[in-house]
Amino acid sequence: MTAGLLEAPGLAAAPLTTADLHASLTDPALTSMTLLNEITGNYPQAVSFAAGRPYEGHYDTEALHHHLRRFTRHLEQDLGHSEEQVRRTLFQYGPTKGVINDLLVRQLHTDEHITADPEAVLVTTGCQEAMVLLLRALRRDARDTVLAAAPTYVGFTGAARLTEMTVRQVPEGPGGLDAADLARAVRAARAEGLRPRACYVVPDFSNPGGARMSEADRRRLLHAADELDILLIEDNPYSMFHDGQGRPPTLKSMDRSGRVVYIGSFAKTAFPGARIGYVVADQPVAEGGLLVDQLAKLKSMLTLNTSALAQAVIGGLLLEHGCSMERACAREAAVYRTNLNVLLDGLATRFPPGSGVTWNTPAGGLFAVLSVPFTADEAALEESAGRFGVLWTPMYHFYAGTGGLTQLRLSYSVLTPDEITTGLDRLAAFVAARTPR
Amino acid sequence: MTAGLLEAPGLAAAPLTTADLHASLTDPALTSMTLLNEITGNYPQAVSFAAGRPYEGHYDTEALHHHLRRFTRHLEQDLGHSEEQVRRTLFQYGPTKGVINDLLVRQLHTDEHITADPEAVLVTTGCQEAMVLLLRALRRDARDTVLAAAPTYVGFTGAARLTEMTVRQVPEGPGGLDAADLARAVRAARAEGLRPRACYVVPDFSNPGGARMSEADRRRLLHAADELDILLIEDNPYSMFHDGQGRPPTLKSMDRSGRVVYIGSFAKTAFPGARIGYVVADQPVAEGGLLVDQLAKLKSMLTLNTSALAQAVIGGLLLEHGCSMERACAREAAVYRTNLNVLLDGLATRFPPGSGVTWNTPAGGLFAVLSVPFTADEAALEESAGRFGVLWTPMYHFYAGTGGLTQLRLSYSVLTPDEITTGLDRLAAFVAARTPR
Repeated sequence: MTAGLLEAPGLAAAPLTTADLHASLTDPALTSMTLLNEITGNYPQAVSFAAGRPYEGHYDTEALHHHLRRFTRHLEQDLGHSEEQVRRTLFQYGPTKGVINDLLVRQLHTDEHITADPEAVLVTTGCQEAMVLLLRALRRDARDTVLAAAPTYVGFTGAARLTEMTVRQVPEGPGGLDAADLARAVRAARAEGLRPRACYVVPDFSNPGGARMSEADRRRLLHAADELDILLIEDNPYSMFHDGQGRPPTLKSMDRSGRVVYIGSFAKTAFPGARIGYVVADQPVAEGGLLVDQLAKLKSMLTLNTSALAQAVIGGLLLEHGCSMERACAREAAVYRTNLNVLLDGLATRFPPGSGVTWNTPAGGLFAVLSVPFTADEAALEESAGRFGVLWTPMYHFYAGTGGLTQLRLSYSVLTPDEITTGLDRLAAFVAARTPR
Repeated sequence: MTAGLLEAPGLAAAPLTTADLHASLTDPALTSMTLLNEITGNYPQAVSFAAGRPYEGHYDTEALHHHLRRFTRHLEQDLGHSEEQVRRTLFQYGPTKGVINDLLVRQLHTDEHITADPEAVLVTTGCQEAMVLLLRALRRDARDTVLAAAPTYVGFTGAARLTEMTVRQVPEGPGGLDAADLARAVRAARAEGLRPRACYVVPDFSNPGGARMSEADRRRLLHAADELDILLIEDNPYSMFHDGQGRPPTLKSMDRSGRVVYIGSFAKTAFPGARIGYVVADQPVAEGGLLVDQLAKLKSMLTLNTSALAQAVIGGLLLEHGCSMERACAREAAVYRTNLNVLLDGLATRFPPGSGVTWNTPAGGLFAVLSVPFTADEAALEESAGRFGVLWTPMYHFYAGTGGLTQLRLSYSVLTPDEITTGLDRLAAFVAARTPR
């Protein structure tokens, strides 16, 4: 470095270009999501069937304080921690795996009949981080591949793009993933020299498809994973939100050969602002320990550990409800049941047989899918929002360009029955205007 | 899938092997950190100069409630939010960039003379996530490279391994990074066909080196970045913890050509359990927007957004101290100053000139470095802990195998003056036993 440099004028840096940034930033599947968010943001007054947020009518700011105090009391009274230990737990860097693992394990047992060791659980910054950690762990080189249902949750697609993991889609029907379809996709990938590692599956009310797998199909899927020698990544954000008619067991609770890595979230059952998710990964690793220990190592490079403060609030909430989230979110589940019925009844009234419009009838979850006799893309959405005052999500976003062009996703989680009725009136007017005669 | 599969016995999956998992999981630099943590964990009764945690004597559980209420009041009274809006802010999915950006910007102006637009700030899950996002953004392909001081903070090394970013080290002296050394390293990397994108630098009390750059050296570094056409990633966790004699301006506040991406953390100034960090990235991108917008897109695939609850608590703390963390952590800064003096005085008493033991005299931060006349590796640490009851960190961990073999890092942040004195007595006994005669 010459002394003359000291006098050199400040050179304005040339702008960065996205061509020099990570490829995920220009991925078509993800940039279209940005466009979608812009469109929905431009019509704040429209009735929105697009929002994927949970119902917020029962949130209570004071409850945050109660939860935190309840967890603090648990540390002091149940676990015998000193005040100093309590402060350290809440304020300091904590164990990478988390501080509410024992409560989480009780919840999994109570609500999902899953038996897990607290040491096999890693608390994550939302379920999104759990997906990233898993895909990062399983992506050794460019051959590594995961399977996922088509349509696929965009958060999973995003995690895959971020970790440069190849995703192969498997068609999903109303009954969820079919074991034979999975086997075909795995064999096709292997024939191309790829190395299929896992299949991502949401057996209870997939987003966006709303599919729920039967117990027999779950058993077939587990057998297929065994025969194909791949893992199953079971994501379960919605199983609590069922129709009250009982529900099939989770894949993880049926798994006898260690195929299922289970990921979960408190975003829908508690609240998203905590950003608390988790992964149960009890698969042994030849060199010692479990897969979860490897995921924890990756987490120590990604976010170190999950906010102890946020964990404490969720921990308190768990304690208040006897470690059952099914109990904790019973009121929300009732809201979603009512809303789904209003939606399905409203659709039947407005779109009689022969109208060219059809839809699925999910038994729970937060989403329904409508098929229409025209292309439901951003241009259609723009018209629907601007001229008719109703927003929805184009389904093709969830297909990575392979389908769904005449389908739209309807989310009913944050709406009142009246808003759903108004929204359906507007939707019917929009569909009528668009439908070819 | 044949029906026969239904009756097939459950095949226990073969264990995973680390050879099939991401390469970062078997990286020597990072596995040695695991070993280190194990050793320190085995000697809970030893005086630990190894802990990098902040002082915890002023943590107060009730303060968490005060901070949260203070932020809630801010939303209601200062920003005029309705109760419903407040609940939505605390409980729901929030804006990817964060909810306390306006307060953060005020803090940066008050404490660091940095002028930033709230829209150029991204709140992250600790500073660790900010590093991962930056490296992910800048890593387009295998040629992309970052420079970092040797010795380097292991969190940065971890973020680089996770994102598969090549790191080239630049030697760091007691005065920090030298612009000429940086230029040499950048040119050498280019000669190898690599594409140097940025240099990671901690100008105020680097971890572990304890170096602080003079204002003139900072100016030279900024000029070098301009001439070399690279970014500077300025990480500033420790500038508050100085010797009370004033301090040089941050690189970001001196930057006139948009070279500096600034990352910060509330882990040391507030508390680690919040997991709140941030990045200021106001570099324009040719296709529109700023670098921060690209980082926000990556964050939406990594953790969606940072816990609103944790942000609210930090926001309240900022408000209580007029958006000055220098004010908020004045008591901690005083503790560190006292401890550093006790440490330096104690070293001078125990290791007279000619003893073969030397050390640096940092003007602040949380760490000092001791040079000893023997190899300070895990075996030495094990003996130090087991026979003498004192823990420290081998410096070679921070060099990626290129140096520091006879150095150890002494951290004094969580100790009392008495513990430091006891620890130094033990350390002196250990050093005497190890020193060749």
